[in-house]
Amino acid sequence: VGLIERWQRGEVTVLSDDECMKLLVDHNLGRFAYTDDEGPVVTPVNYAVADGMVLIATSAHTDLARHARSAPVAFEVDDIDLEQHSGWSVLVRGRTEVLDYDDLPAAHTARPAPWAEGVRTLYLRIVPGAISGRRLLPV
Amino acid sequence: VGLIERWQRGEVTVLSDDECMKLLVDHNLGRFAYTDDEGPVVTPVNYAVADGMVLIATSAHTDLARHARSAPVAFEVDDIDLEQHSGWSVLVRGRTEVLDYDDLPAAHTARPAPWAEGVRTLYLRIVPGAISGRRLLPV
Repeated sequence: VGLIERWQRGEVTVLSDDECMKLLVDHNLGRFAYTDDEGPVVTPVNYAVADGMVLIATSAHTDLARHARSAPVAFEVDDIDLEQHSGWSVLVRGRTEVLDYDDLPAAHTARPAPWAEGVRTLYLRIVPGAISGRRLLPV
Repeated sequence: VGLIERWQRGEVTVLSDDECMKLLVDHNLGRFAYTDDEGPVVTPVNYAVADGMVLIATSAHTDLARHARSAPVAFEVDDIDLEQHSGWSVLVRGRTEVLDYDDLPAAHTARPAPWAEGVRTLYLRIVPGAISGRRLLPV
């Protein structure tokens, strides 16, 4: 990476809300950010989208559950090509709320399916306040 | 994704500080989280590691610069295999400070090299308070 490469940088375009939502629906791994007493925390989680809202599963005993049951949070999904230096990212900002079991999507396949071991029976959804996204085009 | 797959979930192992730092040094794209008046924000950024600290470049006019010049932040790097449902993530939590130009690494290659267009002459480093990481083994 020399000075020349530093000047050949990719163009950034802003994604529409529809494009953001489509990208969100088409993926199932993102990064959930909340705030604890020390500041922001980011953790990768599996998710699903139901009724236009991001849905994640956690356990009642996690740090996340303690601090992000009903709180301002952010959720980021991206796909970035490390070779091409291109890709996209989408950010949902909003407030979490605990989802009652009866409000879960009926189909198991429409619920978040965590890849990691452990029991996760606390479902949170993010009531979106804002959604934004951008795409970095290859140079 | 049926019920059977939901029971075959990967084992999570905790990474040592040394493993976390090695993974951090070996990569150059992560997700920076800070807090503005509305709550947490997450944004993908290029970074470098100097003296064991994450270094990012931004512009003085960004939302990030306004809220994260000297603030509690988090920085997350991961590499997750969407097919294998495996991967790792590392989280640095700490406090940002503005890096004087004289304190930048002398070699340009040791500085963060943003892939996106735009002038970024404000360098921030994260003075780490805690580093943690985990690995999700394939099922």
